[in-house]
Amino acid sequence: MTITRAEIPPIPAEARAVFRAGGWTQRTSGICVGFTFANLCIVPRDLAYDFLLYCQRNPRPCPVLEVLEPGDPIVRQLADGADIRTDLPRYRVFIDGEPVDEPTDITRYWRDDLVGFLFGCSATFEGALERAGIPASWRAEAGRGSGVYVTDIPTVPAGRLHGPMVVSMRPIPAEWVPRTVQVTSRFPNHHGAPIHIGDPSAIGIEDLSLGQWVESPTLHPGDVPVFWACGVTPQEVALASRPELMITHYPGHMFISDIPAEAQAAF
Amino acid sequence: MTITRAEIPPIPAEARAVFRAGGWTQRTSGICVGFTFANLCIVPRDLAYDFLLYCQRNPRPCPVLEVLEPGDPIVRQLADGADIRTDLPRYRVFIDGEPVDEPTDITRYWRDDLVGFLFGCSATFEGALERAGIPASWRAEAGRGSGVYVTDIPTVPAGRLHGPMVVSMRPIPAEWVPRTVQVTSRFPNHHGAPIHIGDPSAIGIEDLSLGQWVESPTLHPGDVPVFWACGVTPQEVALASRPELMITHYPGHMFISDIPAEAQAAF
Repeated sequence: MTITRAEIPPIPAEARAVFRAGGWTQRTSGICVGFTFANLCIVPRDLAYDFLLYCQRNPRPCPVLEVLEPGDPIVRQLADGADIRTDLPRYRVFIDGEPVDEPTDITRYWRDDLVGFLFGCSATFEGALERAGIPASWRAEAGRGSGVYVTDIPTVPAGRLHGPMVVSMRPIPAEWVPRTVQVTSRFPNHHGAPIHIGDPSAIGIEDLSLGQWVESPTLHPGDVPVFWACGVTPQEVALASRPELMITHYPGHMFISDIPAEAQAAF
Repeated sequence: MTITRAEIPPIPAEARAVFRAGGWTQRTSGICVGFTFANLCIVPRDLAYDFLLYCQRNPRPCPVLEVLEPGDPIVRQLADGADIRTDLPRYRVFIDGEPVDEPTDITRYWRDDLVGFLFGCSATFEGALERAGIPASWRAEAGRGSGVYVTDIPTVPAGRLHGPMVVSMRPIPAEWVPRTVQVTSRFPNHHGAPIHIGDPSAIGIEDLSLGQWVESPTLHPGDVPVFWACGVTPQEVALASRPELMITHYPGHMFISDIPAEAQAAF
């Protein structure tokens, strides 16, 4: 069973059921807009303190929303009863720092000592951008969303964990940039205000057409590239720090919670 | 050497030097107003994950600003080189959940496995309240500050840690309450907006004159009691959860950092 993006129900529990059944394995952009999206990172209990401390020291890329109990894959606060092993469209599995698998289900990797972390995602503020009237050219391109890039901005190390910051990018018409800063500032638990506006080379990005993992959006004349800290950052931490095991969502293929995005706004 | 409150230098490093020398062992209200204040909680490394998770699940009372390395009592980000063992006016020491000491220096309790957590404090927004023109009757009473009360609001447990929320209270003239909400909302890492406004009995406080640890402020006619989540909460967690060792600041006797309070504002 495979369906089209337009056929995915706009109700998170129903969308998760489609993902769980393997009916949708592509990116989640444009699906359930207006709900709270979450990045996923799973580490062994032995690494959980380092990871939680890493998030505390790097709240822009890694704002923690919910931490599951060791060995328990079931979400409570963000979507009661959802299973992080099956309810996302696609995952990445890192063993000793090597990305070894990109499965659509991680049940066979599950262990009793694994701790799941769900943290904020810029997809959460897409609905607020839309309601503010900000033209979302990146959403008009079928199947695309924001671009994702590795920067040369270092994050703050914690214990065994270190690595560069990953960012998402959206092309914003110049006259809409201040409003974009205002709207996204209302979502501090979802990366908040942009971390950089304008020159990609200032943060180590050589070519905006060469985003990783997902297709990059097109910059049109008059657009300014606007960058937010991104929850893919722990995946670069896995490459740099080489933990025994880390499992994450595949970039752009997020967990969709039951919480309305506005319930996450600071004000 | 003991000096009066008015003689304490308004520069944090100099105020900390006075505390370190034992020259001031009373509460820090009214000292270095406009700088970032921090609550302190020290636990063994074995309990550090539970404590950091407790803070993540209870960001209103316990917004973490800096976590020190195990065994290292030296602050880096908030006040480079400050020593959490000596640089606060007074501490509380809990052994197996019993408050056994209220020393002005905790050097003799220090161990190689202790982890220091510094987290936000409502004293940080006192300068912003003042600049907004909000009458601060609680500061006009010599030696007093906000009141501190234990509520019947449960916090979210984490691992071995659980307990009721502690709040601070300031009497605000009714016509200034909305402005007070606005100003303090700008400081989400320092308890942010009030957690309750008005009836103390709704949150389990029987008598506002019976605040604990520090003298309570006087409610004048037309004042509304306004309550914020408070960083004393872990001290009630110590009583309820009985960890082997916990060391905290004494309520009202905070760490004063070098960071201007406005640098901590969200916007």
